[in-house]
Amino acid sequence: MSPSAAFPRPIDSANTPRFAGPATFFRLPMVDDPAAVDIAIVGVPWDGGTTNRAGARHGPRQVRDQSTLIRLVNGATGVCPYDLCRIADLGDAPVNPIDLTLSMDRITGFFARLQDGGARPLSVGGDHLMSLPILRALVGGGPPVGMVQFDAHSDTLDTYFDGLRYTHGTPFRRAIEEGLLDPQRIVQVGIRGSIFRADDRDWPAQQGVRLITMDEVETLGPAGTLDTIRAVVGDGPTYLSFDIDAIDPTFAPGTGTPEIAGLTPREALRLLRGLRGLNLIGADLPEVSPPFDPSGNTALLGANLLFELLCLMAESVGGPPAARADQT
Amino acid sequence: MSPSAAFPRPIDSANTPRFAGPATFFRLPMVDDPAAVDIAIVGVPWDGGTTNRAGARHGPRQVRDQSTLIRLVNGATGVCPYDLCRIADLGDAPVNPIDLTLSMDRITGFFARLQDGGARPLSVGGDHLMSLPILRALVGGGPPVGMVQFDAHSDTLDTYFDGLRYTHGTPFRRAIEEGLLDPQRIVQVGIRGSIFRADDRDWPAQQGVRLITMDEVETLGPAGTLDTIRAVVGDGPTYLSFDIDAIDPTFAPGTGTPEIAGLTPREALRLLRGLRGLNLIGADLPEVSPPFDPSGNTALLGANLLFELLCLMAESVGGPPAARADQT
Amino acid sequence: MSPSAAFPRPIDSANTPRFAGPATFFRLPMVDDPAAVDIAIVGVPWDGGTTNRAGARHGPRQVRDQSTLIRLVNGATGVCPYDLCRIADLGDAPVNPIDLTLSMDRITGFFARLQDGGARPLSVGGDHLMSLPILRALVGGGPPVGMVQFDAHSDTLDTYFDGLRYTHGTPFRRAIEEGLLDPQRIVQVGIRGSIFRADDRDWPAQQGVRLITMDEVETLGPAGTLDTIRAVVGDGPTYLSFDIDAIDPTFAPGTGTPEIAGLTPREALRLLRGLRGLNLIGADLPEVSPPFDPSGNTALLGANLLFELLCLMAESVGGPPAARADQT
Amino acid sequence: MSPSAAFPRPIDSANTPRFAGPATFFRLPMVDDPAAVDIAIVGVPWDGGTTNRAGARHGPRQVRDQSTLIRLVNGATGVCPYDLCRIADLGDAPVNPIDLTLSMDRITGFFARLQDGGARPLSVGGDHLMSLPILRALVGGGPPVGMVQFDAHSDTLDTYFDGLRYTHGTPFRRAIEEGLLDPQRIVQVGIRGSIFRADDRDWPAQQGVRLITMDEVETLGPAGTLDTIRAVVGDGPTYLSFDIDAIDPTFAPGTGTPEIAGLTPREALRLLRGLRGLNLIGADLPEVSPPFDPSGNTALLGANLLFELLCLMAESVGGPPAARADQT
Amino acid sequence: MSPSAAFPRPIDSANTPRFAGPATFFRLPMVDDPAAVDIAIVGVPWDGGTTNRAGARHGPRQVRDQSTLIRLVNGATGVCPYDLCRIADLGDAPVNPIDLTLSMDRITGFFARLQDGGARPLSVGGDHLMSLPILRALVGGGPPVGMVQFDAHSDTLDTYFDGLRYTHGTPFRRAIEEGLLDPQRIVQVGIRGSIFRADDRDWPAQQGVRLITMDEVETLGPAGTLDTIRAVVGDGPTYLSFDIDAIDPTFAPGTGTPEIAGLTPREALRLLRGLRGLNLIGADLPEVSPPFDPSGNTALLGANLLFELLCLMAESVGGPPAARADQT
Amino acid sequence: MSPSAAFPRPIDSANTPRFAGPATFFRLPMVDDPAAVDIAIVGVPWDGGTTNRAGARHGPRQVRDQSTLIRLVNGATGVCPYDLCRIADLGDAPVNPIDLTLSMDRITGFFARLQDGGARPLSVGGDHLMSLPILRALVGGGPPVGMVQFDAHSDTLDTYFDGLRYTHGTPFRRAIEEGLLDPQRIVQVGIRGSIFRADDRDWPAQQGVRLITMDEVETLGPAGTLDTIRAVVGDGPTYLSFDIDAIDPTFAPGTGTPEIAGLTPREALRLLRGLRGLNLIGADLPEVSPPFDPSGNTALLGANLLFELLCLMAESVGGPPAARADQT
Repeated sequence: MSPSAAFPRPIDSANTPRFAGPATFFRLPMVDDPAAVDIAIVGVPWDGGTTNRAGARHGPRQVRDQSTLIRLVNGATGVCPYDLCRIADLGDAPVNPIDLTLSMDRITGFFARLQDGGARPLSVGGDHLMSLPILRALVGGGPPVGMVQFDAHSDTLDTYFDGLRYTHGTPFRRAIEEGLLDPQRIVQVGIRGSIFRADDRDWPAQQGVRLITMDEVETLGPAGTLDTIRAVVGDGPTYLSFDIDAIDPTFAPGTGTPEIAGLTPREALRLLRGLRGLNLIGADLPEVSPPFDPSGNTALLGANLLFELLCLMAESVGGPPAARADQT
Repeated sequence: MSPSAAFPRPIDSANTPRFAGPATFFRLPMVDDPAAVDIAIVGVPWDGGTTNRAGARHGPRQVRDQSTLIRLVNGATGVCPYDLCRIADLGDAPVNPIDLTLSMDRITGFFARLQDGGARPLSVGGDHLMSLPILRALVGGGPPVGMVQFDAHSDTLDTYFDGLRYTHGTPFRRAIEEGLLDPQRIVQVGIRGSIFRADDRDWPAQQGVRLITMDEVETLGPAGTLDTIRAVVGDGPTYLSFDIDAIDPTFAPGTGTPEIAGLTPREALRLLRGLRGLNLIGADLPEVSPPFDPSGNTALLGANLLFELLCLMAESVGGPPAARADQT
Repeated sequence: MSPSAAFPRPIDSANTPRFAGPATFFRLPMVDDPAAVDIAIVGVPWDGGTTNRAGARHGPRQVRDQSTLIRLVNGATGVCPYDLCRIADLGDAPVNPIDLTLSMDRITGFFARLQDGGARPLSVGGDHLMSLPILRALVGGGPPVGMVQFDAHSDTLDTYFDGLRYTHGTPFRRAIEEGLLDPQRIVQVGIRGSIFRADDRDWPAQQGVRLITMDEVETLGPAGTLDTIRAVVGDGPTYLSFDIDAIDPTFAPGTGTPEIAGLTPREALRLLRGLRGLNLIGADLPEVSPPFDPSGNTALLGANLLFELLCLMAESVGGPPAARADQT
Repeated sequence: MSPSAAFPRPIDSANTPRFAGPATFFRLPMVDDPAAVDIAIVGVPWDGGTTNRAGARHGPRQVRDQSTLIRLVNGATGVCPYDLCRIADLGDAPVNPIDLTLSMDRITGFFARLQDGGARPLSVGGDHLMSLPILRALVGGGPPVGMVQFDAHSDTLDTYFDGLRYTHGTPFRRAIEEGLLDPQRIVQVGIRGSIFRADDRDWPAQQGVRLITMDEVETLGPAGTLDTIRAVVGDGPTYLSFDIDAIDPTFAPGTGTPEIAGLTPREALRLLRGLRGLNLIGADLPEVSPPFDPSGNTALLGANLLFELLCLMAESVGGPPAARADQT
Repeated sequence: MSPSAAFPRPIDSANTPRFAGPATFFRLPMVDDPAAVDIAIVGVPWDGGTTNRAGARHGPRQVRDQSTLIRLVNGATGVCPYDLCRIADLGDAPVNPIDLTLSMDRITGFFARLQDGGARPLSVGGDHLMSLPILRALVGGGPPVGMVQFDAHSDTLDTYFDGLRYTHGTPFRRAIEEGLLDPQRIVQVGIRGSIFRADDRDWPAQQGVRLITMDEVETLGPAGTLDTIRAVVGDGPTYLSFDIDAIDPTFAPGTGTPEIAGLTPREALRLLRGLRGLNLIGADLPEVSPPFDPSGNTALLGANLLFELLCLMAESVGGPPAARADQT
Repeated sequence: MSPSAAFPRPIDSANTPRFAGPATFFRLPMVDDPAAVDIAIVGVPWDGGTTNRAGARHGPRQVRDQSTLIRLVNGATGVCPYDLCRIADLGDAPVNPIDLTLSMDRITGFFARLQDGGARPLSVGGDHLMSLPILRALVGGGPPVGMVQFDAHSDTLDTYFDGLRYTHGTPFRRAIEEGLLDPQRIVQVGIRGSIFRADDRDWPAQQGVRLITMDEVETLGPAGTLDTIRAVVGDGPTYLSFDIDAIDPTFAPGTGTPEIAGLTPREALRLLRGLRGLNLIGADLPEVSPPFDPSGNTALLGANLLFELLCLMAESVGGPPAARADQT
C-alpha cells in the first residue's frame, strides 16, 4: 500500500465537476485538528491594516473558489503535493473587522495553535499586516528567521497617518524590531512605484535587507534574481510571503495598492519554481482584494500561486513520498 | 434545555464576520447523513437541459456564497427556521456536465437517498430540467402531487430542437405525463414573454394547469394571486418551484432565458410569505446563472428567496419548537 | 397556401439556437429593396447630437444581437407580426461620425428611399437627434403629423452650447418649427429630472404639446395615461418615438442622459400594448448606448420594446392576415 | 440686482460639458470658510465602523463625480437651491482609515467648525457610524433633536463582535444614550431584512422610536407614510439621514449591507419631496460604496437623492429668495 | 482589370463606420455557395464537449462583432487576403446544444459540404471538441494530416467523467485513433498548467506528438519554436488549430479552462507570422467564451488572431495575386 | 528656507487618505493664473475627432481620480517634480462636444493663454486630434518642433470618411503641412495593427518621419529604441505625445481604437525614463476612454505615465532645485 493513500486527497475534478460543492482550498477536506496535518492551508479574512482601498478581507473565500479549478499535479515540476504529506483546509483565523489589536492577538493565537499541533501554515490574506501576528506565532521567542518577500512595496515604513505603527505598510519594520525576522536574511523582490519620501527605502537597506527592484529583476534576469535570493536566505528557516501586488496590476487588478509594471505570472512561476529546496517554515499570499476584481481573475492567479507555494512547502516538509512513508 | 439547542446552527454573523470561512448554505454545517436532518439544502450544479445560455451549473456555489449574508431570523415573519427543525447543507447532487441521461439518473438517486433518510429537499439549481429527476425521487410510485411554480415560462413544451424531449423547457410536461404532478393542482405564476407558436400555452391549460400571467398578477394583486394559488393547490402535498426568471431580469440578470417585466422582489416576498401553511414536500430554486451576473446580485436575491423557502418548509416540517421537542 | 407563407420569416429559435449566426433584427433576412417590405427595421448608428455621454452609435448592433432572444409571437397580445405583413432588416442608414450636417442629410436620404419604396420605418438609434432627419423624409412637404414620445426629456430646447441648434436636446423644437410635427398632436410621456432653467418646459407647453411628467403618470395610472395619449393624437397619422431613457436607468443603464425614477418595463409594456390601433407611419427607439451597459441588458430591454413597436406597426399596416392576402 | 446673484453658482452644463473639469458636488465652487455659506456640502470618506463589506470610504468622490450630471433646478418642485441660499463644497472631513476613535473625534471637530461658522451640513458618507460624531457636533450640549431616518436597518444594536460599542450598526443607540436624539422624535423608514435575534428591534421600539417597515410602507402608501413621519418629528429641529440601503439593492447595489426588496427611487423621491417644510438642521447620505458598483449607478442615484436633500435644506434655510435678500 | 476586383471585399471602415450594420466576419458578404469561395469563414456555436465552464457557444457571434474593427491589410506582412482569393462568411454550422452526437454529425456534414465545394474552412468555435467533426469532414477517408496546435492543453486525454470519450479534452486522441491526424506530424505549443495525473502527457508523447511546453517556448525563443514546428509538420497538408487558451488568461479571460502564464499576443503574432508558407488545409479558433469576458476584449484578440490565420490561409491558397489571376 | 517650500505641493497621502477630497491631478492645488506655474497640467475633455468608439471626452476626470494614488517621488529616478518647479492643475480647456471647428479654436486659445503665461502644458485627452490645436498654440508662427510620439497609429492619414481633414487619424499630417512639426524630427514608436491600404504609412516615411513599428521595438530593444529616438529628435525643442493605445490593450483597454500586441507598461516606463534630458516644450496623453474600462485601470496606468511625463518635464524646466532657487 502506498504511503500517500492515507493522506487527505482533493476531490478529483476528472470525476466530479470543478464547480460542484462548497469551495475549500483545492477541494481538500476541512480538518480541525492541526496535529492531523503537516501543512495547514488557512485564510485570514482581515484588512484592518489597510490605508487605502479595503477588500482583502474577502480574499480567502474567493481564492478558495478559484482554487477548485486546479488539478492534482504540478505540470511543470511533476510534484503532487498530496502525495508528499498531509494537507487540509483548516478554516479561517478568527478576526474582528473593527478592532485591530484584538484581531492581531487572535491571529497570533490561531497560528500558535497550528504551530503547537505541528502544522506549517500556508495562509491566504487579508492584508499584509497579517504577516506580523503570524510571525509572532511561528517565531516568537525563538531566533529570527529569514524571509523571501515578493512585493511591490517594502512594507517597512515606520508609521503612517498620525503615527500609526501597525498598518499594512509597516509589518516588517515591526517584525525586525521585534526580533522575528533577521534583516540580513530578508530579500524583497519586485519593489517599485512612487514613494512618499526619497528616503523611504533607506531604513530597510540600512538594516541589511536586500531590496531587488523591478528594474533590477529585469537586469538580473530570473536566474540572477534566484541566485541573489538564495544568497540572502541560505539554508536557514525561512518564511515566504508573496504579496499579490508583486504581480503587474493588469494581471492582478484585485488588490488594494496597485503599482503598474510588475512581475508577470510567467516570471512569478519561474521564480517560485526556482526556490525548490528552501527550508520553509510557512508562507502566505496577502492582498487579494476581490471587490476590485469581480471577475475573479486575480483570485485565479492567486490560487495558482498558492498551489506553487504548496508544492514548495510539501517538498520542504516531505521529501520524496518513499522517505515520508515512515513518518505518517 | 431548549429543544432547538440540539439543532444545527449557522455560524452567527454577529460574532464571526460573514465573509469568513468556506461558504455553505446559510453558514450551516455540512452533514452527510440524510437521517440527521429534517430539511436538506442541496445544490444541483447542472445545466444539461439548457437550450440557450448555459451557466446555471455555477448557481449552487454562488448562492452558497451570498447566503452567508443572511442572518438567523426572518425579520418579517419572526420565524427562525433553525429553531424549528434540523437543517443542514447536504452538498451537491452528483452530475455529469455532458451526459444528460446519466445526470438525470444520478440526480434521482441522490434525492431518493434523501427521501429514504426522511429529509425534505430544498434545492438550488441548476437549470429547470432538474425538477423532473427530483420529482421522480420524491413522488415516483406514489400519487401525483401539486405544484406552485413561479416562472416566466410554463416549461411544458413537448419537444425542442429535433424532437428532444428532455430540456429545461419541457420538465413539467414530462412530469405530468409520468404521473408525478397532478395538472389540476399546478399553478404557474409570472408567465410572460414572447412564445414560439400562438398555442404554446394551450396544452398545459387543457390539462388543467392554472397559468397566471404577469398581466393577471397585476390585475389580481398579491391577495388575489394568493387566493388563486391556494384554491388550486389546497392542502395536499405540494412541491414549490421558484425559477429565478420569474423575477424581472433587472433584479435577476443572472439567468439563461431572461424575460423583461417580471415580478419584483417585493412582490415575490409578499407572495412567498403568503404561502405559510402549505403542505410542502420539497422546493427548489433553479436557473441562477452566475456567468451572466458577475456581481453576484442575482445570487444574493436567490439566497434571500431561498431563505423564505426555508422558512416555509421549516414551518411545514416543524410547527412551533415546543411541539417539535419530542421529535428530536 | 396561407398568404403569410410568402412573408419573410425569422429563423425559428426552436430549431436553430438563438446564439447561432450573424445577428439581424429578430433574425429576419437582410433585404435591400424597400419595395419588398411593408416595414423596414433599420439602424441609425450615429450619436453626433450627443452633448454628454456618447455611445448610442453602437446601439443598433447590440439591439440586433439581443433581439435574437425574442420568439415569434407576442405572448400577451397573440400577435405574430410576421403573419401580418412583410418585415425585414434593411440595414443601417449611412452616417458620418464627425460631420453632423452631412449625417443628417444622408439619414434623410436613406429614409426618403424607404418612403419611396412604400416601407414604413422602425428605427433603432442612435441619439434622439436622428428623429429630425427621419421626420423630414417621412413628412417633409406634407401636412404635419402627431407624435407619441416616451422620454425623460422633452427634447424641445432651443439651443445648447454656444447656440447650437441641432443636438439631441432640440430635435422636436426644430421639427415643430419646420412644420413636420403638429404640436397640438404631440404627447410626451415620462418627463422628469432636473432642468437647466425653471422655464425649460414652457415653450413646448405653449405650443400645445402635452407633457405628462412621471408624477402625472403615477397619478393618472396606465389607463388614464393611455386615455390622455389617445385624446391628444387621435386617429391621424402619428409617429411613435420611444427614447430608452423614458425607462428608469436601473432597468436601462445603457443610455447617455440617465434620469432616475422613470417608467418600469411593466408600465412601458402596458402603455405600448394600450396603443393598438394608432395610425402609425413609423417609430423609433433611440438612445440605447452599449458602452454604458456592457452586459447588454439595456439592449435586451430595447429589443423587447422594439418587438412591441413592431407588433403595433404590423397591425397598423396589416390588419388580420386574411385581409392582407391580396396585397402581397 | 437679484439677491441670488451673489450666491455661489454651479458651473452650468448647458455651457460647459458635464464631464469637464474636476468634480465637486454639483459643480459648485470649493470654499474653505464655513461662514461664507449657509449649507456646506461635505464628504466623510470613512468606513471604520463597517462590519461586513467595506468601501463607503470611496463614496464622497464618486458621488461628486456623478453629481455633475445634475442641472440647476428641481424639475418636480421648481426649486433652484442656488437661488435660495449660499451653498458650496466644503471638502472632506479629516479621517483616519485605521484608528476609529481618532476618526470620530476629528469628524466631530470638523463639523463643530461648520456649526460655529453657521453652516448647516449636508454630508455624504462614509458608513453610517459617521452620523454619531456629526450629531455630537451639531447637538452636543443642547437639547436632543428629532430624526427622519431612511434605512433598511435600525442601526440601534447595542454591541457587535466582542462587545464593540461603535460600529455602523449601533450609532443611533449611542446617540439616544448620549442625549443627542430624542427617541420619541425618531422615525425610521424602510426597515427590513433578516435579523440576528427576534428581539433586535425591541429596544428602539421601547424607547419610542417609530419603525416603519417596508411592509408598513406598502400598507400606508406614500401619503400615509408621510403623515406618520410628520406626526413623529413635528416642527422641532430635525436631522435627516438617508442610508442608501433604504433603496432596493438592484437600484443601489453599491452598498455594504444590501437587503432586497427596498424602496424604489420613485418612492424615495415622493417621500423626500413630501418632507418640504421640515425644520432641518442637517442631513446625510451614508453607505454609498463604489467598489460594489463600478458602473457608478448607485452614486448617480445617490447624487440625485442628495440634490433632493439639498432642495429641502435650502428651503429650510432660505424661504423664498426675496425674503433672504437682506441676509446675504 | 485586376483579378482581385471580382473577389468579395469587406465593407471599408474608412468609408463606413466600423460600428455600422450587422456584423459578419471582417465585414465580408454572407455567401451560401461553398463553390463561390476559396476560404469559408464559419462559426461553430457549440460547447457540448465542455466539462467545466460553458459559453463558447457564444464565441462566433462576438468574434464577428469584434472583427469589424480590423482593416483590410496586415500591417506587418503587407498581405491583403482579399486580394489573394475569394473569401466570405458562410454562416454557422448547424448544432444542437443538448445532443452531442447529433451535433457532431451535423458539423461533419456542414464541413463536408464546404469541402465538396472546394472551400477551405476557417472556423471560430465553439469548444475544442469541434475540431474532431471538422477533421472527419476534411480528412475522412484520406491519409492523415499534420497539425500545428496552439493550446494550454494537449486535449489528448482518453476519457473524462465516467468514461466519456467525447469531450473538449479528448478530440485529438480520437482524431489520432481514427487516422485523421498523423501523430508524428502534430506539434502542440504552449502546453502548461496543472494536470490530473502525472502521466497525462505520456500518451501523446508516446504516439510521437511533439509537445512544446511554455517553459520550452521560453527556452527556445520564437525562432527556435518556429524551427521546431516546421521540423514537425514539414510541407505536407496541415491543419492549424489555435485554442484561445494558449494565450495568457489575462489577455484572454473569456475562455472556459484558463491556465495562467501563457503566450502573450506579441508572441502569438510572431509565431503565426512565422508560419507563412505552410500547406494549410484549414484552421480553427476554438474556446472563445464571451460570458467570461463581457468586455469583448478576448473576442477582439480572437478576431485579430483570426485575421492572421486568414492571411496565412489566403497565401496558402493564392500565392501572389498575379499568379492567381488565371484561377478565378 | 528651501526654494521648493514655496512651490505648490500635493496633498500628502501619508497624512490624508488618497480617497479623500475632490480629485485634482496628483492632488495638486487648482490654479487659474498660468504665470503662477512652470508646468500646467490640464485636461482636454473632447473626442470630436473620433471615428470609431467615442469616450475620450471622459478621460481627464478619470485620470485625475486615479492620479490621487500616486505618491510624491519617482521611486526609480528619485525625482520629486514638486521640488523642481511650480506645478498645478489648471483645469480643462473649453470645448464643445458637437462643433469641431469651434472646439479646435478654443483649445488653441486656451493653450495660447498658458503659453503667454509661461506655463508649459502637460495635457490629458481627449482624442488625439487635440494635439493639433495645442501645437498651433505652442508653435504657431515659430519654427517647427520635433516630436516623440508613442502610438499604435501614425495618425498621418490625409482624409477620412468623405474627405474629412480633421479627425484623430490625421492630426500630424496637418501639423506637418502647417509647419508646426519638422517631419525630420518626428519619431513614432509602437506602430502596429491592420491598415486601410498597403501604402498608409508611405507618406509619413516620405516626409522623413521615423516610424518604429512594434516589431522593430522588439528587435532594437529598449536601448536601441532610445538611441533611435534621440538620434531623430536631438537637442531641439520637442513635443512628447503618448497615445495610450501605444500600450497593449489588455493593459489599457479603455481606448477607442485598440490594437493588440503593443508596448507593456514596463517597456513604456523604461523608454520614458530613458528620455531624461530632452528639451520638452510640452507633452500630452490622449485617448484614455473610460467608458471602455469602467474599472479605471487604464486611467491608473495613464496617471502613472502622466507622472513620468511630469518628471521629465520638471527636469527639463527646472534642473536641480538649487539651480532653480533664483528663478522663483
